[in-house]
Amino acid sequence: MDNVRTPYALQTREELLAVKEKHQAKLDKWGEMNLTLDLTRGKPSQAQLDLSSGMLNIIGDRGDCFSESGLDCRNYGILDGLPETKKLFGDLLGLPADSILVLGNSSLNVMYDTMVRAMLFGVSGGYEPWSRQGRIKFVCPSPGYDRHFTICRTMGIEMVPVKMNADGPDMDEVYNIACSDPSVKGIWCVPKFSNPEGITYSDEIVDKLAAMKPAAPDFRIFWDNAYAVHELYDEQTHLANIFDYAREYGTEDNIFYFASTSKITFPGSGLAIMAASEKNLEQIRPIIATQTIGYDKINQMRHVKFFKNTDGIREHMKKHAEILRPKFELVEDVFARKLDGYDIAHWSKPRGGYFISLYVENGCARRVYQLARSVGVTLTPAGSTYPYGRDPQDSNLRIAPTYPEMDELKLATDILCSCIKLATVEKLLKY
Amino acid sequence: MDNVRTPYALQTREELLAVKEKHQAKLDKWGEMNLTLDLTRGKPSQAQLDLSSGMLNIIGDRGDCFSESGLDCRNYGILDGLPETKKLFGDLLGLPADSILVLGNSSLNVMYDTMVRAMLFGVSGGYEPWSRQGRIKFVCPSPGYDRHFTICRTMGIEMVPVKMNADGPDMDEVYNIACSDPSVKGIWCVPKFSNPEGITYSDEIVDKLAAMKPAAPDFRIFWDNAYAVHELYDEQTHLANIFDYAREYGTEDNIFYFASTSKITFPGSGLAIMAASEKNLEQIRPIIATQTIGYDKINQMRHVKFFKNTDGIREHMKKHAEILRPKFELVEDVFARKLDGYDIAHWSKPRGGYFISLYVENGCARRVYQLARSVGVTLTPAGSTYPYGRDPQDSNLRIAPTYPEMDELKLATDILCSCIKLATVEKLLKY
Repeated sequence: MDNVRTPYALQTREELLAVKEKHQAKLDKWGEMNLTLDLTRGKPSQAQLDLSSGMLNIIGDRGDCFSESGLDCRNYGILDGLPETKKLFGDLLGLPADSILVLGNSSLNVMYDTMVRAMLFGVSGGYEPWSRQGRIKFVCPSPGYDRHFTICRTMGIEMVPVKMNADGPDMDEVYNIACSDPSVKGIWCVPKFSNPEGITYSDEIVDKLAAMKPAAPDFRIFWDNAYAVHELYDEQTHLANIFDYAREYGTEDNIFYFASTSKITFPGSGLAIMAASEKNLEQIRPIIATQTIGYDKINQMRHVKFFKNTDGIREHMKKHAEILRPKFELVEDVFARKLDGYDIAHWSKPRGGYFISLYVENGCARRVYQLARSVGVTLTPAGSTYPYGRDPQDSNLRIAPTYPEMDELKLATDILCSCIKLATVEKLLKY
Repeated sequence: MDNVRTPYALQTREELLAVKEKHQAKLDKWGEMNLTLDLTRGKPSQAQLDLSSGMLNIIGDRGDCFSESGLDCRNYGILDGLPETKKLFGDLLGLPADSILVLGNSSLNVMYDTMVRAMLFGVSGGYEPWSRQGRIKFVCPSPGYDRHFTICRTMGIEMVPVKMNADGPDMDEVYNIACSDPSVKGIWCVPKFSNPEGITYSDEIVDKLAAMKPAAPDFRIFWDNAYAVHELYDEQTHLANIFDYAREYGTEDNIFYFASTSKITFPGSGLAIMAASEKNLEQIRPIIATQTIGYDKINQMRHVKFFKNTDGIREHMKKHAEILRPKFELVEDVFARKLDGYDIAHWSKPRGGYFISLYVENGCARRVYQLARSVGVTLTPAGSTYPYGRDPQDSNLRIAPTYPEMDELKLATDILCSCIKLATVEKLLKY
């Protein structure tokens, strides 16, 4: 590693050409290796999935299938979750058990269904269905979660990006938009270890969101607490309970709260929940009762028996952290060793969650994505973290270090660093 | 048992008063027993659920979690079902595996979601969303499945009842409605062992449905094959493959096909599928990809490993039949012994499915329901089998004999017969 580095912007044309030649040669070499390395999605690794192996056969026969109340979990009955499952999530998230619905295997699906209900039936309070109110809008703190944006796009909801600061969405922007325009019906939030930034909303931001009086009386905060217990380090990252704040302001009805065990147990074979005020639940439950007779209670029972209580989940999450932490640190370390001093990139150092957010020079993100792809390293497409896939600076890339093994991750990150250098040099040489 | 019986309508007032007194006394006695007997819903019994106990821990560790293609079923990946699950259902139902989507735990939910998609996005072919076409209508063969009707009611879709004949819906009525009025967007069908009649559509009816050219170009047949392999007897009941007929007429796009394992393995913890034409699937898949990353593939794998193939399912269904058949025969036997000859009721003798459809004298069904309920026997509310809960004759009751144990079922049916007699006598004495 060089001791003193010169920012690329200050290097001579000859120096830059040398950098270009060096890293082009490296890419050529990697290109011959037929690599397929995937840094696209926040997938747990096999070692993480193995942590939940004990859950697979924890329900071994009919005797394991009866809930505390004597209900046979193998049969019809109970619409919105076993009481013991609601209690488990309630204890974990600091929410009253009776404010929780346990709904299926995917919080994305629960969020989509929640949007569908609002579109077709409106939200509680007797408001017009959103689909009958003409053009409506959602506030989208950006960069953010691409699948949230895809839901809006599919529904024809206009997305209004707002800036993410170090402590959460820029609340001046949020207020300006949400409090002036009644066609703005909601905001997407990943309040803890946000996707992709890893930012956790400060108490002040949570307070401002709870205090907000939107222009639309049927405005909803979609609070996707996807990484509620997903710390990478022993230190716990505090996120305020938004319902506690909302109660002070009488705005509990503004909040739809989501979480899941997709990255606690098994993605696709976990549990998803929604929490909401009693008034919201009164409106939602009969619609869900039309939609289904009930969700997979045997799987609910698996989770309850496997974890027993909140401590069980927290202990389990420490094991995830032990597997994940070295991967995050590896990427951050490679970035620091290869990129520090050149002034060509910066990146988040998250304390939890599933992503590292990487910023390269403006106008270079798409090119980095292409270069990496050309040698078999797949990144989430540049732009994905912004509404309509349009990163106005073409600068952000979302790195998902969780799935690959360490040696693959090291190689992919090395390659990525060369791609960053090459793309930056290409840009500079154009001027 | 009396050898010669006089129809109630021909009995004297004194005779009827004696009947009334006798059965009122019986009800009074039962009323003191604090009974809670439930004939409401098509729930499998515990003995039936025990048949699938081996499925609970058939996925014991990570080694069991890999699909034929090497995919780790514990992780994200695959939107619409493992290939082996599609093959299993395809073989069972005589459908191409690639026409099948394996979607979640509930076919009711799949049907609801299908209706939601049509409402918000329209059906394939670029048609307007149903929710933007003003008042729309669905054809509802009646009596039918109450939860189908609830979906329409919740969506604000007007239901147009048509008569059920012994071989399926009255196709003259169906054609009259569907082929003349472009606001008629679909029809609900339970084509085999229909709920509640136990009727299986004849080839001629299936042919007419497939041949139909509805006035609405975006018309869809919601084909809920809920009881595809649910025979009560060794003899197999033939249902034509509607896609085979539709292909002849070029109407495959008119069909949305649904099925599930709710009454094969575990209600709520089974698998639900949808099958459709390639053109329909092309429109549906991207919307589902917005809704979810995927469904519970571990549970798909449980089903595949447990059954292995179609023969496995058919053998399994014979065991269900052995448990169910005596229950159906018990009810039919009690009905025959207690009611034959009085000309006060008739009922279906289904060869499969989950229900017996009971017809009492016009204007008596609600009263029978009330009387039964007053002594602790709960029936599906009278009228439930008709759109808007309105049985024009107030005559039909749906009997679900599957869940209770034999002794309870015997008692409940005895009580029901007394309620029928009492209600009929009350009616006759009014004149």
